[in-house]
Amino acid sequence: MSGVCRILGMGPGDPELLTLKAVRLLAEADVVAWFAACGRPGHARVIADGHIPRNAHELRFDYPFTTGVSVEDPRYLAEMGAFYDSCARDLAKELAEGRQVALLCEGDPFLYGSAMYLFDRLSPAYRCEIVPGISGMSGCWSAAHLPMVHGDDVLSVLPATLDEESLAHWLGRGDAHVIMKLGRNFAKVRAALHRSGRDEKAVYVERGTQSGQICLPLDQAPEKAPYFSMVLVPGRKRAR
Amino acid sequence: MSGVCRILGMGPGDPELLTLKAVRLLAEADVVAWFAACGRPGHARVIADGHIPRNAHELRFDYPFTTGVSVEDPRYLAEMGAFYDSCARDLAKELAEGRQVALLCEGDPFLYGSAMYLFDRLSPAYRCEIVPGISGMSGCWSAAHLPMVHGDDVLSVLPATLDEESLAHWLGRGDAHVIMKLGRNFAKVRAALHRSGRDEKAVYVERGTQSGQICLPLDQAPEKAPYFSMVLVPGRKRAR
Repeated sequence: MSGVCRILGMGPGDPELLTLKAVRLLAEADVVAWFAACGRPGHARVIADGHIPRNAHELRFDYPFTTGVSVEDPRYLAEMGAFYDSCARDLAKELAEGRQVALLCEGDPFLYGSAMYLFDRLSPAYRCEIVPGISGMSGCWSAAHLPMVHGDDVLSVLPATLDEESLAHWLGRGDAHVIMKLGRNFAKVRAALHRSGRDEKAVYVERGTQSGQICLPLDQAPEKAPYFSMVLVPGRKRAR
Repeated sequence: MSGVCRILGMGPGDPELLTLKAVRLLAEADVVAWFAACGRPGHARVIADGHIPRNAHELRFDYPFTTGVSVEDPRYLAEMGAFYDSCARDLAKELAEGRQVALLCEGDPFLYGSAMYLFDRLSPAYRCEIVPGISGMSGCWSAAHLPMVHGDDVLSVLPATLDEESLAHWLGRGDAHVIMKLGRNFAKVRAALHRSGRDEKAVYVERGTQSGQICLPLDQAPEKAPYFSMVLVPGRKRAR
């Protein structure tokens, strides 16, 4: 009997935003796996800290890149693909031996989560179960007290890695926008927001729901943004 | 001392997808308020059932419409506005008397949630706290085992109440799409998916994470869809 790979959403940062289901399945895990940037504690692991069983075997997967290289770069795609292959092989070994695996994922696993790449590799051969988590964007708009979409507003979720032209194009249509993964793309994102006339109501959120949380109108945001930050543009609020 | 209005996300349906925080704050509530369609149990109330304090005062807010009238209809906007005014007055009375209010909201409150309209009315005068919930869409794509956005895919969330032209326009650009609130808009949504060539990989999810859950390729979906159903179109998966 193979084990089950449980991909558990850990939410945006506040450990109290874990679901009852994630807590229960974590307690049953033989193996707890998580991603981390080189030399840093894994964000998902930090959130889960109070719930990891004492005798669980932990597997840490260190990303090969410490700063965001564009996903359009062929080197990025090739190296990340090889990295995910290797992680999936490690988990497959545990599953084949019948162990229950909990793969921790910050936010919601299937919304830009690294766990998706392991799901794609493991699910043809092993049973997988997905437990959704509170997404980073839900955590941020709640923390910022910013209702996002009223009535039939359209919401677009844009990775900040898109080029300025594409960002401005998207921002120019639709109603509400989330721009994720700011980091070193922040200057470009600001320019795109300005070009599209959507900068006025934009809100900057850094470390939403975590300690040291910052929510500010965009024009008061710091010049540099960490990776764990986003810009929120609320919808047009035609319905009241 | 006024009470605090806690707007609590109840998640997509599975009561185990409540957060630890929502459970804790529910237990502290003097007043528990929730929306419901006329003559039906409120969905948020059903999810919260195991966690409502025994001596809490419950306030049920019955929507004035039982089927979805377009939000573009001026009658809808006016009647709903008056309804939300009345709900907000009821909660303001409780808050002014110092009671702790928990306002239950299915899914994530600030993503198309009715609670937003009460937040807009109450937050200028009363302290509000927002606890994000697992969104319906996260629940559905997790239930359907459908990773939605890889790499720098753009995700658009579209209310099915948009006209066919607008839907097809949105579906023709971007990568991943969620079409929410199907109900009687389903035939129009199907037509828009077909016109835009995005029907092939589309997945229909009904009652995601709830009992009686259905996940099917769009071409096998039932002809009629309830309001609690959506169509998911996964992204283009350029990154692997």
